[in-house]
Amino acid sequence: MELNAITKPTLLVDESRCRANIKKMAEKAHKNNLRLKPHMKTHQSAIIGEWLQDEGVQAITVSSVDMAEYFAEHGWRDITIAFPVNIREINRINVLAEQVTLTLLVVSEANVNQLSMQLNHNVQVYIEIDTGSDRSGFKVADLESIQTLVQSIQKEAKLSFAGFYSHPGHSYASRNESEIRQVHQSVYKQMQKLRTKISSADHAFNICIGDTPCCSKGTQFDIIDEISPGNFVFYDLMQTLIGSCKSSHIAVALAAPVVAKYPSRNEIVVHGGAIHLSKDNMQKKQHTSFGEIVPLNNNGWNEPYPGCYVSAISQEHGIIWCSDKYFDEVDVGDLVGILPVHSCLTANCMGYYMTLEGEDISVMDKEKT
Amino acid sequence: MELNAITKPTLLVDESRCRANIKKMAEKAHKNNLRLKPHMKTHQSAIIGEWLQDEGVQAITVSSVDMAEYFAEHGWRDITIAFPVNIREINRINVLAEQVTLTLLVVSEANVNQLSMQLNHNVQVYIEIDTGSDRSGFKVADLESIQTLVQSIQKEAKLSFAGFYSHPGHSYASRNESEIRQVHQSVYKQMQKLRTKISSADHAFNICIGDTPCCSKGTQFDIIDEISPGNFVFYDLMQTLIGSCKSSHIAVALAAPVVAKYPSRNEIVVHGGAIHLSKDNMQKKQHTSFGEIVPLNNNGWNEPYPGCYVSAISQEHGIIWCSDKYFDEVDVGDLVGILPVHSCLTANCMGYYMTLEGEDISVMDKEKT
Repeated sequence: MELNAITKPTLLVDESRCRANIKKMAEKAHKNNLRLKPHMKTHQSAIIGEWLQDEGVQAITVSSVDMAEYFAEHGWRDITIAFPVNIREINRINVLAEQVTLTLLVVSEANVNQLSMQLNHNVQVYIEIDTGSDRSGFKVADLESIQTLVQSIQKEAKLSFAGFYSHPGHSYASRNESEIRQVHQSVYKQMQKLRTKISSADHAFNICIGDTPCCSKGTQFDIIDEISPGNFVFYDLMQTLIGSCKSSHIAVALAAPVVAKYPSRNEIVVHGGAIHLSKDNMQKKQHTSFGEIVPLNNNGWNEPYPGCYVSAISQEHGIIWCSDKYFDEVDVGDLVGILPVHSCLTANCMGYYMTLEGEDISVMDKEKT
Repeated sequence: MELNAITKPTLLVDESRCRANIKKMAEKAHKNNLRLKPHMKTHQSAIIGEWLQDEGVQAITVSSVDMAEYFAEHGWRDITIAFPVNIREINRINVLAEQVTLTLLVVSEANVNQLSMQLNHNVQVYIEIDTGSDRSGFKVADLESIQTLVQSIQKEAKLSFAGFYSHPGHSYASRNESEIRQVHQSVYKQMQKLRTKISSADHAFNICIGDTPCCSKGTQFDIIDEISPGNFVFYDLMQTLIGSCKSSHIAVALAAPVVAKYPSRNEIVVHGGAIHLSKDNMQKKQHTSFGEIVPLNNNGWNEPYPGCYVSAISQEHGIIWCSDKYFDEVDVGDLVGILPVHSCLTANCMGYYMTLEGEDISVMDKEKT
């Protein structure tokens, strides 16, 4: 990659780091006898999908019908849409169900009734379990409803009961590995309860959990069958704060041109704002950070400059608070690297990547789908 | 528009409201003898650009070279890039400068030196003034540097001094019309100082200010020549909170399918999250809101349901806190309307619109540019 060739905000992906992240998760899955069904919402890219295939991945998880169609077009044949089924999309679901092994999420009897009436093809269904994120799915305590729903699913000819799916998003409140493992153990115990109580009904099913912190740092997986983390392919600053990874694992950085320098406030202004990084941010001690600053070179980037961070963003502007040392080094016209707080949203905002070899990597087209 | 035809998150634009917002601002500009150079970053769409042309708009403001190229391709011939000039993009700036009347923003002597060395064509330049947003530009108190920079610009054959540009982003801290007018008066006085002190140097120049709150509610414009608001074409909840508009002026709403309903917490889950609305939010009394809920019908939408709001969002999920009354009414499979907190970022996330007549409106393609 020639840094000189980069003229505007550009999302760099370090293929080596990304492939290393994928390899590590694939090895962990293999060691724990888990099927890795990575969540593609993080990168939304067929090319990065190929990097996953290179590590033996055969089944994937997505968060929308749009995304399922995109990856089906790119040859994937086992796709889980990990979002409560939206019956308004039944026509496209039917087309997909004819093309691929399709797994849907149900969160109510209504979902099952609607599907049974409107499906033309067989699909598998997970029941979504809310293990603590308070987003969607059944609480494990509601065992009776879950059992009833399993029976309803099993009565429907076009539905196969795949098992239970949970995204323990509350693991994001963790701030070290020990806290992540506490969440993981709580999730494990809830799923174990389902395994015990529901397994008596004489049918096999899978248990799938899907958050990057627990999949990265959890240690007990014996009653889990599948994992569907997404963020781990890139990681990001939030994951370093949570304790899922180190900053040296972060595989994407926004290259942003410096356009102004203000000695009176130790700040520089870059072209790199909310439409590039997203507005996601994190609280670090006394300040809110929208990103950290890394030195870029033609081979990628190094560890963040201490004491420097993106302190404010508007639509196209990023304001970077600089240490005295860094402020002296940086000039208008330079290119700085910014590690994102939330790589999934940054990738979604940018809509394409550039590898360190200077190649463009495209993602799914929002308008087309 | 047939609501039944909408199956997934879709950004609706009410053309009548949008055209009314444009007409009102165009009339205000005309009445105050101001040139309206609207900021296209809000909608990023050539079609909506035509609605602006219908009200006599001939010159526009954009926030990037990408956007300038897109609108130049669509026939605009007077374009201001209201972002501190990024010299790394000089090749594309030179191409643009050959095609259109191009105006750039400079914020330092370094900018002027770099431009003078690398420009092949004539451009106009504004000096950016920081009237209180602490983002980029000179403080008016730094009159000596401003005067020196004006002289530097006037020495360069390829640069014409256009005047002073300011985006008073600090007007967004206002919470009623009176507070907006206080900001506007402060901006006015600063610009008046420049008008007085710099006009003695025997050359004409323009003063341009660009924020939607001051342009919507400011009353004194006699020393101002141009305005470049952007958000006013759509407005949004933040602008209602600031005091720039009423909710009946908001011209975009996200149609989002309801996928789950949780009586225990009075919440519904919709397909409509951070990649649709953006993560921008606002504090309202006791809660953080990522959007408000409006009833949709085939002709558009009505006023927000009292006491209902988007209380949390993740990448694809929106959680809506419901009043008891609304919770009873809404069902899984329904479509709800969500007024965005920040329409510019929602529009940027979505990448296309649907009119109430059911027509698709495309925006600039990020990857292509």
